[in-house]
Amino acid sequence: MAQLRTSIATVSLAGTLPEKLRAAAAAGFDAVEVFEPDLLSCPLTPAQVRELAAGSGLEVSLFQPFRDPDDVDPAAVRRTVHRLHRKCEVARELGTDLLLVCSSVHPGAVREDGRLAEQLRALADVAAGHGVRLAYEALAWGAHVRDYRHAARVVAAADHPALGNGVDSFHVLSRGDDPADIALIGAEKLFFYQVADAPRLPMDVLPLSRHHRCFPGQGGLDLAGFHSAVLASGYSGPVSLEVFNDLFRQADPAATAVDGMRSLRHLAELTTPGALPAAPRPSGWAFAEVSAAPGPAGDVERLLRALGFSRTGVHRRGDVDLWSSGGVRIVLNRRRPDVRAQLSSLGLRTSAPHALAERARELLAPLVHRPVGPGEADIPSLVAPDGTWVQFCEDTPTGGWLDDFVAVAEDPPAPRGGSMVEIDHVALPQPFAGFDTASLFLTAVLGLRGHEVVEVAAPDGLVRSRAHTSEDSSIRIALNVGPTAAQLRGRPLTSGHVAFRTADAVGAARAFRRAGGEPLAVPANYYADLEARHGLDPEFLATLAELDLLYDRDEHGELLQFFTRSVSRELFVEVLERRGGYRGFGVVNTPVRLAAQRRTPEAQEAASEA
Amino acid sequence: MAQLRTSIATVSLAGTLPEKLRAAAAAGFDAVEVFEPDLLSCPLTPAQVRELAAGSGLEVSLFQPFRDPDDVDPAAVRRTVHRLHRKCEVARELGTDLLLVCSSVHPGAVREDGRLAEQLRALADVAAGHGVRLAYEALAWGAHVRDYRHAARVVAAADHPALGNGVDSFHVLSRGDDPADIALIGAEKLFFYQVADAPRLPMDVLPLSRHHRCFPGQGGLDLAGFHSAVLASGYSGPVSLEVFNDLFRQADPAATAVDGMRSLRHLAELTTPGALPAAPRPSGWAFAEVSAAPGPAGDVERLLRALGFSRTGVHRRGDVDLWSSGGVRIVLNRRRPDVRAQLSSLGLRTSAPHALAERARELLAPLVHRPVGPGEADIPSLVAPDGTWVQFCEDTPTGGWLDDFVAVAEDPPAPRGGSMVEIDHVALPQPFAGFDTASLFLTAVLGLRGHEVVEVAAPDGLVRSRAHTSEDSSIRIALNVGPTAAQLRGRPLTSGHVAFRTADAVGAARAFRRAGGEPLAVPANYYADLEARHGLDPEFLATLAELDLLYDRDEHGELLQFFTRSVSRELFVEVLERRGGYRGFGVVNTPVRLAAQRRTPEAQEAASEA
Repeated sequence: MAQLRTSIATVSLAGTLPEKLRAAAAAGFDAVEVFEPDLLSCPLTPAQVRELAAGSGLEVSLFQPFRDPDDVDPAAVRRTVHRLHRKCEVARELGTDLLLVCSSVHPGAVREDGRLAEQLRALADVAAGHGVRLAYEALAWGAHVRDYRHAARVVAAADHPALGNGVDSFHVLSRGDDPADIALIGAEKLFFYQVADAPRLPMDVLPLSRHHRCFPGQGGLDLAGFHSAVLASGYSGPVSLEVFNDLFRQADPAATAVDGMRSLRHLAELTTPGALPAAPRPSGWAFAEVSAAPGPAGDVERLLRALGFSRTGVHRRGDVDLWSSGGVRIVLNRRRPDVRAQLSSLGLRTSAPHALAERARELLAPLVHRPVGPGEADIPSLVAPDGTWVQFCEDTPTGGWLDDFVAVAEDPPAPRGGSMVEIDHVALPQPFAGFDTASLFLTAVLGLRGHEVVEVAAPDGLVRSRAHTSEDSSIRIALNVGPTAAQLRGRPLTSGHVAFRTADAVGAARAFRRAGGEPLAVPANYYADLEARHGLDPEFLATLAELDLLYDRDEHGELLQFFTRSVSRELFVEVLERRGGYRGFGVVNTPVRLAAQRRTPEAQEAASEA
Repeated sequence: MAQLRTSIATVSLAGTLPEKLRAAAAAGFDAVEVFEPDLLSCPLTPAQVRELAAGSGLEVSLFQPFRDPDDVDPAAVRRTVHRLHRKCEVARELGTDLLLVCSSVHPGAVREDGRLAEQLRALADVAAGHGVRLAYEALAWGAHVRDYRHAARVVAAADHPALGNGVDSFHVLSRGDDPADIALIGAEKLFFYQVADAPRLPMDVLPLSRHHRCFPGQGGLDLAGFHSAVLASGYSGPVSLEVFNDLFRQADPAATAVDGMRSLRHLAELTTPGALPAAPRPSGWAFAEVSAAPGPAGDVERLLRALGFSRTGVHRRGDVDLWSSGGVRIVLNRRRPDVRAQLSSLGLRTSAPHALAERARELLAPLVHRPVGPGEADIPSLVAPDGTWVQFCEDTPTGGWLDDFVAVAEDPPAPRGGSMVEIDHVALPQPFAGFDTASLFLTAVLGLRGHEVVEVAAPDGLVRSRAHTSEDSSIRIALNVGPTAAQLRGRPLTSGHVAFRTADAVGAARAFRRAGGEPLAVPANYYADLEARHGLDPEFLATLAELDLLYDRDEHGELLQFFTRSVSRELFVEVLERRGGYRGFGVVNTPVRLAAQRRTPEAQEAASEA
């Protein structure tokens, strides 16, 4: 099946109209919808806008919106006809023959379908005189017409070749309507197709539409189902992103445009076989890499030893060590000397690293050309939107990336309780407005599923967090974004962390302390509340309190977790045990953890520096 | 009537529990409600928290919340009783005998009033054993009990001296319930009174409550009516601010606490005669003051001359000039040499400057002790939250503050069309999260009324704007806050401006150009759209376009407006004409203005600096 051409409405991008056109062209879009307010604020004539677009290979797919087309008052109808003449002229000057007409929202809207069809037919006649076609769209909050099937009936009754339907996934799915009947509209009467996703927020559909729309895959709507319904109609026009989003309006338009194109390619992949190269998704962790200057690297090494890790390998080209405990491998990279200790790269196992990288490239993920020494493994690597590297490692029991390290014969750590089983998850802090882009990257490029966004109270504001997991939960990545005021003060509240899973958190916590490790201190009030809520066994509770272990419970099982003191402003470690299939991350404990981190001397010091 | 003691819930303030207590004490609160999560994250024991509070003169008025008190499952009821024992112990340790109990939200909630009353009576017995009383509150989203009258019936049925009602203005008014029946509850059964305002946002009541509550006077609820209903019950406990707000959680707790106290004093003033010193509100503009270093001051002078102003006075102590045109007076202050040209002070006319200042002091407005030279007018001055000064000027036809200026006999400007009539309004840019504080300052301290918040699209994000007007519209002040990303880049999008009203905008625009003034250029596309929408007379439209005049219309009349190029990143001037009682500010034109400002060479330069 042929793929649809790609388009984006200028309202989806920040900047002036010329800046928007440049961004859309650079991301590879075929066309743009011109959003009228962008034109009104622009000193270029419509013809100059058309030339500018054409010069960078963009068509103008549509001019929009033409609002409130119908009216019970004949004088208003005459004014509307006048307005339509002018807007058709602008559309033609812009180089498009399509004008988007929204169902009326004003109190004078016509409420009788026959009369509405009549008025739309008359407007279609006016448009046809200019060589323009009208795509009539049901707004979810229209005064009379809100359902695309209702709009389609009115369009059919008007029966004019210059009048057809425009469908927008947001207006259909936000109402909970079934998109299946789009297939019945037929290619001839489906003039335009706009697509937008939206999160599931408990608010009215109008503010949701105006402020929180997002690109397909960033929200919670079933856009694959919607897209399939449009394809089933035989529609062959462009698929056009129309996204009103408060954060996109502030973002770098070039980055937003790339994000939008990524969302369309992913949508095509989900609905059209062969749209992207096939590749199996990553199947687990190979390693997590921490970068640190040599000094801070010493702190990381001390922490790893206290957690029972030992140095098991040295990279052939030096300055990079491999640390291991049980099934967990940490790469400690001292090649970037200016860096505070931080998570810098995620190594993921896959059966087909290069196919996965090729697919990622099609999804506009920037590939890194890392230097590969003689005999070294060629590990395809990408850069996630926040700058973290993602590396695809051949999933072989031996060899592969591990062969880049020369084994060292250090004394293995003494046998102890609570050794590490696997990397359980990593958490990556995101910059302001970077949340949705990063989330789409994880879902589209890595095949993870985004869960509900949760908000957690820190002493200095709410932290938003969203977990992403692979189908079998072998990969879990949480994205966190801290409060804006803290970012404005240059002191973001969130740092990255890596969580190791153990089969014995009590043993691990004890061994960690014995080895000189410092867990994050948990207040006694927390344990008093645990007792009040869960009535835990007093001895068990005393053990938790003694070892600064936090506790949670869900319908599947129990969680025990402790946190290390931070190694840097950007890194700490969590150790956790999942008993009986506990699925969460202990979010209920996060406020206690955040407040405890705020009280540590290192945090006080950072605060006084800022 | 005696005033209620003041209290604030710790959740209303950012920081750790000790920081919250310090902030509440400094702002003069009598008591705090301890919000349990703040305690759980705190290493102090409850007794230590009590001591810390007492040490700074604060009582603990209440411990909260105790959730989901009732359950259809007897095993769950047993666990609840266990939990209640523990929480009563904590309450007593904290030094309070009051525990707030919220109506259940869980699926196992009891749905039969008799059984619910029975369970609550049993819990009250448990509490009484600890010397604790329970204040039962209907949450607006409770599973069964949502209405305070329903809660009061259940409490009456339970008939236990340790069980009474807690009322919260948010839970009552957000549902649209009439608070009048609170008076019927009676002082004996009204155990606690929480107050919070909220904006009118089209969202569910739960997210509205959790994220957008605000202090009385910052939202749209009728809190004076609510407060009066509580007073009518005979209630004599504290009035306690319980505000869940995403921005307050990030703000400086000391400033938030002052804000909260100001809101309570203003609420008392609205409901209790004599609560604050009487004082008439300001009745109009005396002047607007612009500060500028000597170089930029030259630019301001050139702009004022082009607008038809002349220098009419020089301050006795030098470095400050008075500029006049018609009824408009601008004070140009060159005493602060490090300042880019910006609005620095608003001079307001009043019949009783000192009474107004005394009242402002009671509302915690910081008074400025400005140096007063011999023979100079003593002008009481305050600092608004954004740093702008507000000065109260004796409303006399002659004398007063004007006598501080020695008249200069400059050549008056040649007679010309479109002279200025008055200051129409000023607009003040606000920092991130400063909006609500500034708005409350204008409503409480200056007696203005806040209108709906509007959002306007700029090329780099949405600008939020809220107009505040005095009863007769003689004073209009707009607050603007720009997009966060721009603030993070250190390049806020909004600047201040002062708008002069003329009776002849066309004449004023022509004279401005003839005098060498540069209006902000408006694109031709804007005028084409004006024609399409309003079908304006072609000659009139041509005049608008020739003079870069923007146009709007409302049900009362018409607006003509033009903008000068910016004098600095923080100042430009608007000239407007209101025909036939037009009431707005031309918000429909603001996106065009913002985009035009973004295109000016001065804006491009500022952008490249940032």
